[in-house]
Amino acid sequence: MDVEYIKSHLVPHPDFPKKGIVFLDIFPLLRNPLAFETLITNFVHHLTSSTAAKSPTKKIDVIVGLDARGFLLGPIIALRLGAAFVPVRKRGKLPGQCHTASYEKEYGVDNFDIQVDAIKPGQTVVVVDDLIATGGSAKAAGELVTKCGSQVLEYLFIIELTFLKPSEKLDAPLYSIVKVDD
Amino acid sequence: MDVEYIKSHLVPHPDFPKKGIVFLDIFPLLRNPLAFETLITNFVHHLTSSTAAKSPTKKIDVIVGLDARGFLLGPIIALRLGAAFVPVRKRGKLPGQCHTASYEKEYGVDNFDIQVDAIKPGQTVVVVDDLIATGGSAKAAGELVTKCGSQVLEYLFIIELTFLKPSEKLDAPLYSIVKVDD
Repeated sequence: MDVEYIKSHLVPHPDFPKKGIVFLDIFPLLRNPLAFETLITNFVHHLTSSTAAKSPTKKIDVIVGLDARGFLLGPIIALRLGAAFVPVRKRGKLPGQCHTASYEKEYGVDNFDIQVDAIKPGQTVVVVDDLIATGGSAKAAGELVTKCGSQVLEYLFIIELTFLKPSEKLDAPLYSIVKVDD
Repeated sequence: MDVEYIKSHLVPHPDFPKKGIVFLDIFPLLRNPLAFETLITNFVHHLTSSTAAKSPTKKIDVIVGLDARGFLLGPIIALRLGAAFVPVRKRGKLPGQCHTASYEKEYGVDNFDIQVDAIKPGQTVVVVDDLIATGGSAKAAGELVTKCGSQVLEYLFIIELTFLKPSEKLDAPLYSIVKVDD
């Protein structure tokens, strides 16, 4: 099954970036073109097949990718769908007028920006990142999409830390390929 | 011509991120699937045609992308070529054993990491980023490839600030699509 094949290329690193956390490294997967292609095919098939969360006939206009690991996936998926790619970045990294949303990190608050003209009102948007943990950064990305006058159709991730119940924070369905239960 | 078409989607922002600098924003290009596809086609055609810097018959094994905007391009090019994608990141972001190289920034020194097992000795490597200015970060990426026992075949960028003479810093040819002369 493609999920087991994809999962077999994620390498756990105990106590990274700090003690008690097991970091799942996605880069060994990106080093293997066949495994990487399988990952992208899984996402694209999900978005274009009838298993997608919302109406499969709805055209996806925009893929939003979160800085920095969402940048590894979002542009590829966008090109495969013929959609726009739009970044969400840490405050101060994007030129021009931006909307801002804040989210809680372990220590204090951080801010995300999106360019105000990046998404047109009413466009269909999918948000992509490598991993969802508490869901704070994905929620902030969703708020930015709302501020652009649009709405998130679905949130996509390679890895979901299900025990942190991130889907409860989100305003749209969550799709993840590899679920980590503890 | 595709270069003029690509260039027409780069939006200048005077005095960003600070006074006196004109920032060329690549994100309007990534919002337009046809322009983005044209950009990727330019890179892939260059790498697979006889106009490539070195022997066109040499298989490219690895595309190295620099954090964060190199992540927008590197994985797409890697998948198109059937090559591995390998990231160069700021120190402390990558798990496992890493090689490190430092480079000068405007204020002080920064460090880049690469995972030691990411590139095998003798593999053919191309380094990709959105923009080359002084060439400091590209040079550091080249040093990391050398530490892995391999060598850079070519450095690729959308934009080159030619007046800063970045090619003089590099150990391999530089290919850029849009040249900025002043």
